[in-house]
Amino acid sequence: MTEGTPTSSRLSRRALLGGGAVLAGTTLGGGVVGHAVGALGNGRSETMPSTDGVAGPGAAGRPGSDAVAGKATEPFWGAHQSGIATPHQAHGVFLGFDLRRGADANSVRSMLRMLTDDAARLTAGRGPLGAVDAELATTPARLTVTFGFGVGLFDAIGKPEACPPHVRSMPAFRTDRLDRRWGSTDLLLQVCSEDPMTLTFAERRLVRDASDFATLRWAQRGFLPARGTEPDGTTPRNLMGMRDGTANESDPNEVAAVLWNDGSTHPWLAGGSQLVLRRIRIDMATWDDLEIEAKEVAFGRRVADGSPLNGSKESDSIDREAVDEQGFTIISPTAHAARAQARSGRERMIRRPYNYAVDTETGTETGTEEGLLFAAYQADLGTAFVPVQRRLAESDALNTWTTHIGSASYAIPPGAKEGSFVGDTLLRA
Amino acid sequence: MTEGTPTSSRLSRRALLGGGAVLAGTTLGGGVVGHAVGALGNGRSETMPSTDGVAGPGAAGRPGSDAVAGKATEPFWGAHQSGIATPHQAHGVFLGFDLRRGADANSVRSMLRMLTDDAARLTAGRGPLGAVDAELATTPARLTVTFGFGVGLFDAIGKPEACPPHVRSMPAFRTDRLDRRWGSTDLLLQVCSEDPMTLTFAERRLVRDASDFATLRWAQRGFLPARGTEPDGTTPRNLMGMRDGTANESDPNEVAAVLWNDGSTHPWLAGGSQLVLRRIRIDMATWDDLEIEAKEVAFGRRVADGSPLNGSKESDSIDREAVDEQGFTIISPTAHAARAQARSGRERMIRRPYNYAVDTETGTETGTEEGLLFAAYQADLGTAFVPVQRRLAESDALNTWTTHIGSASYAIPPGAKEGSFVGDTLLRA
Ligand code: HEM
Ligand code: HEM
Repeated sequence: MTEGTPTSSRLSRRALLGGGAVLAGTTLGGGVVGHAVGALGNGRSETMPSTDGVAGPGAAGRPGSDAVAGKATEPFWGAHQSGIATPHQAHGVFLGFDLRRGADANSVRSMLRMLTDDAARLTAGRGPLGAVDAELATTPARLTVTFGFGVGLFDAIGKPEACPPHVRSMPAFRTDRLDRRWGSTDLLLQVCSEDPMTLTFAERRLVRDASDFATLRWAQRGFLPARGTEPDGTTPRNLMGMRDGTANESDPNEVAAVLWNDGSTHPWLAGGSQLVLRRIRIDMATWDDLEIEAKEVAFGRRVADGSPLNGSKESDSIDREAVDEQGFTIISPTAHAARAQARSGRERMIRRPYNYAVDTETGTETGTEEGLLFAAYQADLGTAFVPVQRRLAESDALNTWTTHIGSASYAIPPGAKEGSFVGDTLLRA
Repeated sequence: MTEGTPTSSRLSRRALLGGGAVLAGTTLGGGVVGHAVGALGNGRSETMPSTDGVAGPGAAGRPGSDAVAGKATEPFWGAHQSGIATPHQAHGVFLGFDLRRGADANSVRSMLRMLTDDAARLTAGRGPLGAVDAELATTPARLTVTFGFGVGLFDAIGKPEACPPHVRSMPAFRTDRLDRRWGSTDLLLQVCSEDPMTLTFAERRLVRDASDFATLRWAQRGFLPARGTEPDGTTPRNLMGMRDGTANESDPNEVAAVLWNDGSTHPWLAGGSQLVLRRIRIDMATWDDLEIEAKEVAFGRRVADGSPLNGSKESDSIDREAVDEQGFTIISPTAHAARAQARSGRERMIRRPYNYAVDTETGTETGTEEGLLFAAYQADLGTAFVPVQRRLAESDALNTWTTHIGSASYAIPPGAKEGSFVGDTLLRA
């Protein structure tokens, strides 16, 4: 019986992955089970060569065009999950799942084992266990699958205290216009790839394999400019036409300092992170009508090259104090980048957003809804996103065109060691 | 006053484009009007170098990766519209508009003049008249805008007899499960580009500039595999994992014979074409569960390389008569490609489909709806799509997984001469 034979694949997967003993490597019979564990154990050695981003590991970086090839992979196993400090892929989908009624630590563990196995295989360019048609898996195109845990998961496994406070409950902000349907779910999978086809295949497999345990509440799909539209290494523009991601840290040590939780308050989270996902609708029609100069005042940076109004090149920082000859500050105090700029090291985050555009059939003139899936990672939401967003909600020139219509937040577990599963530090008995 | 100044741009555009005399080049004053016509007249000379597809002008071809650069353009003016025989761009959106109440030949002419001007500029990498921020237009990435006329447009201009019969009314097919909301509209704009950002910008401008005359009923957005995922020139896979487009004609003379209407029954349509757009939902969950061998039987071609089961390479044709050693036909008579294969030269079409995947928030396990925006061009729907689809509806192995949920059809006017507008052969008094 070969791997990939469809005969009751779901069942054999459950038999395989449901029991804790299996992946601990004990009491294994031969056949499918032995084969599968062998394959799992070999996960890394079959992985194709990974590619580094030209701009370093900072999330703002994008890889050179030689990395676009469908065969390129990102590592799956490791101290941290991929898809966070990984150079930003061109396509992404955020999948929000709710656990089925009656879920407990055992079923959540089984689910995470199964999804870890799927993710390890898919990101390496192999079909998940039980997938009949492995051909579709052979162009991962830098696929990553990143797991996040929402408040409901902590409650379900009987460890409510293990949930970081701002994952449990995000404070309300003055400008919020939140629609509950884009709210926090029990589980999040962030799936990213250079190829939208790869994404839909991975999405299908993950949704299906989760389905014994969890149902999909929402899927939020986004994109960056196509690879190759601008020279390699150029910071991608967002729908508003602005280069987005410039001020993200790019030095690997700084990136690490921003991203990784030290486990001091929640030991299981050491090496993990925290994610906020805001669905932000943008009124593009009125934005399009604004002069370039006014756009630049609103952001504090130039449309053409992303340089700050107080500087000359993109890598220059926003200087809120810089003054012109008349002694006026050059950057408007309400400019988005000025308001958003970290006031301390602890306020920093790594932004990894995607643009979205959703077909509508409204019969009105508006048509497509457009906006930003604002995704930001940081060691602690409470010291980074929360104070920054509070400041933006108070006053931010951008608020004229943007409306926060969704908010979800997640604890991002550390990466998994090969043979283990994502979340084991939380679910270990 | 420079081009792009926002002051009542909509009004000055209407003043500019609404009157027939303006574009005929007579009685022009200076200022905005003179400037704009000058710019229109220079449309072509500002166009960046166009790139040819490696696989010739057939719609199945995709350009080499040097063509991905954001600056690459496709011609706009010419005997035929672009976006038909043009190598298939990675992203596309179909915009279905309905005319506002009271539309007549004059207002339709004004609308088409304005949209022609927009399309000419956008596809050349320039902002449309009145667009404040031209920066967003500078990466056309092979943008094309293709116009189609639905039955309602012919009625509105008082020329119902000018509407080809199958644009007026498509026969019902046995397997139809059509949802009216994806039905024919009065006007279609097919917008394609290598870059999804370019697409949303162009969509916004076109919807806005049409809005005095027409409202958007639907937008249907689709994608191919990302450029660069597979080697240049590879036929793209669809969501089902099959290479799609193989049997499209690639010889330029044959492509022309398939596509261009000779005007014998509708003189205004000479050099134009006819388009059918079917929204076809695919049940990917059950398809994923099928063995590769069964998939190949269903299509008559191999998953790995797209070669027909009766041949060895992708370019080999389906041979419905070929038999194996036992004398059985190699291609199943219900195989999709066998049923779809043209029985005569007049049954041929050029398929230019896009995959779609739409976010849902259903609370069920299905999540994303996936399928194919099947778009096919031909000289006459009545001799090509209609008999082929009738045969497929009778029997096609694919019908197990596919459901036609939308159908729209359009007359595709010939291309416009520089300084004229798309549709002038129909609207010329
Ligand atoms: C539609 C919504 C948003 C858009 C279009 C947007 C876009 C931008 C752009 C273009 C920049 C300047 C370039 C760069 O450094 O990346 C920027 C900077 C920044 N944004 Fe946003 N942003 C949005 C929402 C937010 C939100 C909700 C937050 C956090 C609460 C945020 C945090 C930041 C930060 C921290 C910076 C860097 C400031 C600096 O240090 O210079 N942004 N954003
Ligand atoms: C979800 C729906 C569909 C899918 C996934 C699909 C896919 C395919 C594939 C993979 C092929 C073989 C490769 C190729 O020659 O391109 C093919 C061939 C073909 N299909 Fe479809 N198709 C669909 C619907 C249709 C429809 C509705 C029509 C027209 C009524 C059609 C007409 C054709 C034709 C004419 C061929 C070429 C046959 C030959 O000469 O070998 N297809 N299709």
